[in-house]
Amino acid sequence: MENSVKVIPLGGLGEIGKNITAIEYKDEIMVIDCGVSFPDEDMYGVDLVIPDVKYLVDNSEKVKGIFLTHGHEDHIGALPYILKQINVPVYGTNLTLGIVKNKLKEHNILSDCELHVVEAGDIVELQNLKVEFIRNTHSIADSCCIAVHTPVGVIFHTGDFKIDFTPIDGLVMDLERISALGKQGVLLLLADSTNVERAGHTISEKAIGDTLTRILSNAKGRVIVATFASNIHRMQQIVNASIKFGRKVAFSGRSMENISELAMDLGYLHIPEGQVITLDQMKKYPNEQVTIITTGSQGEPMAALTRIAFGTHRKIEIEPKDLFIISASPIPGNVKMINKVINQLFKKGAGVIYEDLEEVHVSGHAYRDELKLIHALIKPKYFMPVHGEYRHLRHHTKLAQGLGMDEKNTFILETGEVLEVSKKEAKMSGKVHTGSVFVDGLGVGDVGNVVLRDRKYLSQDGMLTIVVTIEKESFSIIAGPDIITRGFVYVKESDALISEAKEIARRELEHCLDNKVVEWYILKVNMKKAVEKFLYEKTKRRPIILPIIMEI
Amino acid sequence: MENSVKVIPLGGLGEIGKNITAIEYKDEIMVIDCGVSFPDEDMYGVDLVIPDVKYLVDNSEKVKGIFLTHGHEDHIGALPYILKQINVPVYGTNLTLGIVKNKLKEHNILSDCELHVVEAGDIVELQNLKVEFIRNTHSIADSCCIAVHTPVGVIFHTGDFKIDFTPIDGLVMDLERISALGKQGVLLLLADSTNVERAGHTISEKAIGDTLTRILSNAKGRVIVATFASNIHRMQQIVNASIKFGRKVAFSGRSMENISELAMDLGYLHIPEGQVITLDQMKKYPNEQVTIITTGSQGEPMAALTRIAFGTHRKIEIEPKDLFIISASPIPGNVKMINKVINQLFKKGAGVIYEDLEEVHVSGHAYRDELKLIHALIKPKYFMPVHGEYRHLRHHTKLAQGLGMDEKNTFILETGEVLEVSKKEAKMSGKVHTGSVFVDGLGVGDVGNVVLRDRKYLSQDGMLTIVVTIEKESFSIIAGPDIITRGFVYVKESDALISEAKEIARRELEHCLDNKVVEWYILKVNMKKAVEKFLYEKTKRRPIILPIIMEI
Repeated sequence: MENSVKVIPLGGLGEIGKNITAIEYKDEIMVIDCGVSFPDEDMYGVDLVIPDVKYLVDNSEKVKGIFLTHGHEDHIGALPYILKQINVPVYGTNLTLGIVKNKLKEHNILSDCELHVVEAGDIVELQNLKVEFIRNTHSIADSCCIAVHTPVGVIFHTGDFKIDFTPIDGLVMDLERISALGKQGVLLLLADSTNVERAGHTISEKAIGDTLTRILSNAKGRVIVATFASNIHRMQQIVNASIKFGRKVAFSGRSMENISELAMDLGYLHIPEGQVITLDQMKKYPNEQVTIITTGSQGEPMAALTRIAFGTHRKIEIEPKDLFIISASPIPGNVKMINKVINQLFKKGAGVIYEDLEEVHVSGHAYRDELKLIHALIKPKYFMPVHGEYRHLRHHTKLAQGLGMDEKNTFILETGEVLEVSKKEAKMSGKVHTGSVFVDGLGVGDVGNVVLRDRKYLSQDGMLTIVVTIEKESFSIIAGPDIITRGFVYVKESDALISEAKEIARRELEHCLDNKVVEWYILKVNMKKAVEKFLYEKTKRRPIILPIIMEI
Repeated sequence: MENSVKVIPLGGLGEIGKNITAIEYKDEIMVIDCGVSFPDEDMYGVDLVIPDVKYLVDNSEKVKGIFLTHGHEDHIGALPYILKQINVPVYGTNLTLGIVKNKLKEHNILSDCELHVVEAGDIVELQNLKVEFIRNTHSIADSCCIAVHTPVGVIFHTGDFKIDFTPIDGLVMDLERISALGKQGVLLLLADSTNVERAGHTISEKAIGDTLTRILSNAKGRVIVATFASNIHRMQQIVNASIKFGRKVAFSGRSMENISELAMDLGYLHIPEGQVITLDQMKKYPNEQVTIITTGSQGEPMAALTRIAFGTHRKIEIEPKDLFIISASPIPGNVKMINKVINQLFKKGAGVIYEDLEEVHVSGHAYRDELKLIHALIKPKYFMPVHGEYRHLRHHTKLAQGLGMDEKNTFILETGEVLEVSKKEAKMSGKVHTGSVFVDGLGVGDVGNVVLRDRKYLSQDGMLTIVVTIEKESFSIIAGPDIITRGFVYVKESDALISEAKEIARRELEHCLDNKVVEWYILKVNMKKAVEKFLYEKTKRRPIILPIIMEI
């Protein structure tokens, strides 16, 4: 296609998280966001999932920068890993880069990185591409849409957004600029699909403030609110309601402490002098004068809220009249964990308020009516839904079609697929290499599908090692077979089973040796198969069996 | 306490599932229900969880029978295991025992068991106790409350229930009898707490029929409905809507086939001659004349729906215009699994309708207004909430208190705690032995916390075996150390790491042997510690390390 621009999602399509999209025009690539995703249940032991950016590394001379829409993990979390592979300038608003800086510091690479703070309204000029940051509203402050002005037309990426007409900081979404761009003509729209299945319009963040004020007006003891550390506006509202009723505020949990401090430093969170106290200072105040804002709203096992609930927090013990507020929605997969925490808080005698009982959380992602408004303002020629599982992408194209867009102008891509757009046409054109890289401890990419498959099997039925020492010359068993097992059965109660398994291994070995089978490989396979068969018949389980022959 | 009756939940309180409650009066025990629960994510490899019924076994001469409220797994699933430990008569309605019979057959113990079919309204007379079955409505047919008439008063157990004024089979809940019992006086009420956090009244099952009829009236291809196999009324409505639009019905999935056949045999599911077809006969009919009712509404990996979605079902392949309906709510913990299936169905080009989009499911558990009605009719002296997590039990006692009940007459028990009730008073009195027994393959109880802990660690970072052969006489290393690992790192790419680990093991060993450390136990511990430390520094992972010394 002549004079075209390529849009390449390197992550984040048909999956939740790991958002990263490359936009390529001739010898220039700009990248929007660089997020992580969190491991599925079957990714045993994996801490984080980051995008495979081989495509960017292979084209590193083209890559002009990474442009961040906002500071959530699924949009910035992979930066420390990716910047180690391809060190390019990073652009983002003040809060976003503040959070990024903390991360780069932890990874000891801050001084090697080039960070550029922008403001909503700024335009960054590359060679042929101009990148415009446009204010939106979301569940984190200082969030933006990004419009990429290319020689073939404007590509508009909403980022994550909702349309909050009464945001806490008073900074409403720049619908005027969006509307002006729509009037000039937008070639391609990429828009957040997370809540496309929800009818109507999201509730404003401000509504939470009203609920919190009502709840706090009746609270007789401490109030402990668990929420997302990055939701600074939520924090601000908890602080405001607390001050109103003469409560000091303490922060608990590492990310809550870090981000609240950062947000105060950068002027996103406003707390009058003397209103913030440490957990140690709490004792000086009566309980009804204390609010604690804490991590753990998802029931994460190591987070502060969970430790408080189960009595392992070093500084906070549950007291009568404590009132806990879970100001968050459980992410699918976390429901059971947070339920455990809620039950435990109730058992300890505390009061607990959560989403099922009161409006203590609102979503940060646009509902259908908001999406319709954006489509109507932008009037793009082509549309590509982003952020969401496949079902959301599908429903988002239906929504666009309902607004009059031709089906052939809507494109559902998967991670790695390429959409090529010119002034006249748009079409899918090939694929680039993409994938998921697993971070486990210090290892990045050294855990893959084989290792995960083994971990899965190990977790199901455990393992069993059979060791035997054989003298090479005489083909005779010198020691063993011995069996060591973990995660399979209670060894003490299954003595007979294990003894019998040893006997079977020995018989199989002797049979092989008698028949002059001398290849260790075959000996091992035969021994393994014999024991496997025996154990499955006896237990209907299939532990991983590791036969080891020591030859002397 | 003189002349008192004991109520002992042996499972099901403060947990979901595994419902079993003993009611004991002098030398007589009757048991209500005998259910399983499903393993939590951290119960690696466990298939089922059954109650520990040592208390019943220890008092087996007292136990007069097990009385079943309805045929759901969490109320009957443990019977085959428990009847092997304590063979007592089992009482239940026709459908309930039909399902039980299938289970006992699978376990080859049907002929040893004594089953008594009862009807709603029947009273079973034991010695001092009389057990009355009272019809209720629930998401399975032929469900009952149980009233136990004891010399000290009536104990009323709701079982699982909702109040459906327009049930599909026309058999409404026997509110008249419940009201009469309330008038005579009920000593203690045990009531279902599952939906106590939901305001209002459940929607009638009948509403689903209307939705299904509307959806089927527009369907252009096959309709495939996934639902719970036990929800026979749902099945009936799918069948009715299908027949209305000239569709034959086929059943897919083992439990769906079994239960539909049973329900037809027993007269709970009515399908006119010639309307049911097999999956093989489907080919003879055009797609728009076929409905398939299938298992897999929770996205279970091996269920029919999942196999259809991922192209591994032997007889059903997705075709254009296929419309899938997920007629169920995801149970917490299953959300991600069912989402994967929905996404996959969309990707294959099928239509999919689920709860977020249409009213294709209703709950089988009473909401707050229904609970209030039951409390108002029964007017119990004492109240003990059952079925639900702790938070539900707590809210249910609050509901009772809101209706005027004194807080000291409401009792939140945990599994194993004993409530002793006389005409004059009720109080908690001690605990009996209870617990969870894990079923894994053929093993019942041979997997416990130690094995599960090992499976957990194995699943996190895998394992590593270090084997070495040592000559006893000379204290010298004859072979090894060798290292075998699974689930830890890609061995090929981590050659250097593993080699270094071997070297560290060897050095530690030699150091010990040089210093005349000759106890194998100490050698093993030291070798293990040295390698553990090294690997953690290098990888921040902690695989399970198994040191093995072969002595010759």
